Amino acid sequence: MTTSSSPLGLHRVIDPPGVLPQAAWRLDTDPALAPDEVRIRVDRLNLDAASYRQIRETYAGDPDKIRAAVLEIIATRGKMQNPVTGSGGMLTGTVEEAGPESPLGLMPGQRIATLVSLTLTPLVITDSLSRWDAKSEQVPCEGHAILFARSIAAALPGDLPVPLALAVMDVCGAPALTKRVVKPGSVAVIIGAAGKSGSLSAAAARQAGAKVIGVVPTEAEAALLREAAGLTDEMLTDEIVIADARDPIGLAQKVEEAGGPADVTVVCVDVAGCEGGAILSTAQGGMVIFFSMATSFSAAALGAEGLAADVTMLVGNGYVPGHADLALDLIRTTPALRALFERRVRYEGGQP
Amino acid sequence: MTTSSSPLGLHRVIDPPGVLPQAAWRLDTDPALAPDEVRIRVDRLNLDAASYRQIRETYAGDPDKIRAAVLEIIATRGKMQNPVTGSGGMLTGTVEEAGPESPLGLMPGQRIATLVSLTLTPLVITDSLSRWDAKSEQVPCEGHAILFARSIAAALPGDLPVPLALAVMDVCGAPALTKRVVKPGSVAVIIGAAGKSGSLSAAAARQAGAKVIGVVPTEAEAALLREAAGLTDEMLTDEIVIADARDPIGLAQKVEEAGGPADVTVVCVDVAGCEGGAILSTAQGGMVIFFSMATSFSAAALGAEGLAADVTMLVGNGYVPGHADLALDLIRTTPALRALFERRVRYEGGQP
Repeated sequence: MTTSSSPLGLHRVIDPPGVLPQAAWRLDTDPALAPDEVRIRVDRLNLDAASYRQIRETYAGDPDKIRAAVLEIIATRGKMQNPVTGSGGMLTGTVEEAGPESPLGLMPGQRIATLVSLTLTPLVITDSLSRWDAKSEQVPCEGHAILFARSIAAALPGDLPVPLALAVMDVCGAPALTKRVVKPGSVAVIIGAAGKSGSLSAAAARQAGAKVIGVVPTEAEAALLREAAGLTDEMLTDEIVIADARDPIGLAQKVEEAGGPADVTVVCVDVAGCEGGAILSTAQGGMVIFFSMATSFSAAALGAEGLAADVTMLVGNGYVPGHADLALDLIRTTPALRALFERRVRYEGGQP
Repeated sequence: MTTSSSPLGLHRVIDPPGVLPQAAWRLDTDPALAPDEVRIRVDRLNLDAASYRQIRETYAGDPDKIRAAVLEIIATRGKMQNPVTGSGGMLTGTVEEAGPESPLGLMPGQRIATLVSLTLTPLVITDSLSRWDAKSEQVPCEGHAILFARSIAAALPGDLPVPLALAVMDVCGAPALTKRVVKPGSVAVIIGAAGKSGSLSAAAARQAGAKVIGVVPTEAEAALLREAAGLTDEMLTDEIVIADARDPIGLAQKVEEAGGPADVTVVCVDVAGCEGGAILSTAQGGMVIFFSMATSFSAAALGAEGLAADVTMLVGNGYVPGHADLALDLIRTTPALRALFERRVRYEGGQP
């Protein structure tokens, strides 16, 4: 690199010039490092759920077409950012080279996961994704990625299987923010409670002393929660509600019957159209945290106004200081959560 | 109406059935009232700024095409909701009939403004918008609209001109939420400080005891702020920064030089791509409130994560109890704000 480097990675932005890497259409993936950068030998991508779902549905599940679509995005943009959903994911790999001025404290050979989004991480794939069956968002691969001075990476914990740790760290912002806002004795409604960010958020809310109402879309998802509880003699949620989160009226009624409305509602499902139901399930003066990338800003803003709902609505921020450690500790200390997660990771075909 | 009515207006949803009126594609505009509804004789629409801008730009400012586009949306959907921006606006009119079970306390003949969005208000236009020059978002018109039991309407104040009161009430959620979160002695950055929601938010932040840095895009907008201050011997902002809010790096640097970063940043400009700049101009532990309908949920969520920014991000909720009274009081008690607003309303061609 001949240009001077920026901690935010501005020097890697090719098009359009002058924007932040996340907003850029295309990044420079040159493996040569600036003094404060780190190069990672990538071994796995974990695509954002909404992004993977959009691509899978667009190509009707055809593995060749899905692989080709992901490769095309990465080759064109120099990063894995789905142009439709705007979202990315994260990756794991091994530190290959750390520039002398990098503040991240990483050493060559260390196994790490990135906690910044793939949407701003320069990335090259060299194996045509040939080992990926395209049936899950966990993508084994070969290639390299670049971290900037202000990127966040975490060493993979030695006591947990890699796919498990990766799945946990991918969504670790949700439990951290949930724990920050939930008060003891309050009612927390977790929409998508059997999913990854949802079950972590449920565990965080219970640990914070809330009564937790878990909302799931199907009896099969409810069974996952009950099974994890049965295996470990521990509940992840106080109540389980089976409801379509896109049906505001139906959802609010069922939440009410289960002990709602919520003081805090956490939206963790990657489907569009859940804004109204979340707002209507929340008490006046309460809070909704939107963690789904399928959230529509205008649907949330206008929905609350249209319902005359005095609710504080948070954009789920994937970064909260200490988020990875908090989420990994929840997994270590909550057997039901770990049982559910292991089931989810196994189901998705993730292998170390 | 033969079906039983819902306070949320569910009985007016035609397509798709079972969703909330705001999420519906099409509403029933039948002038016959359910017992808890109110019919308004409409005299003016105030289109959402992002919606008006999108339509004006699509038709390159051609008045006939702009009128036709708005008429087509209203005729097709039974409400004024721009399919591209998802946003609507508000209206004024006179109460024509109030159902015996309406809880809104409105009497026939009363002059009111609706404080719920046009995106969920059944609306019929009968004058082809022939009196609208299509040069501003204030649309004189004739027709009728329906209010539900849980709609919000405010009587127009007798001491302020109608276009002024309407312009204030249209954006009254912004100053109310700003006042709620700003602390005395903190730094508030208002992006779009010379606009309507921006100047109201600036006044609210100053009243709450914050140091206010107003960001405007051009010298002309800065002059508006200075002129209002000069006319009234009162500042709306402590500092004025001229910067492109879509340029995160440039914006953050200029805000820093003016006394930032912000404890609270309020985004009030209707252009896309301001998420990164707002986040980067805010201190760790601070807050960003997004009031622009041009905000991208994923750009905000991923932008904060990508910058490792521990900022709380709020979806600006247009409804805060008491918001209309608070905003009207700000206009009455802040001469510089009133001077700026009168200039804005005059410039936009709004007439009583």
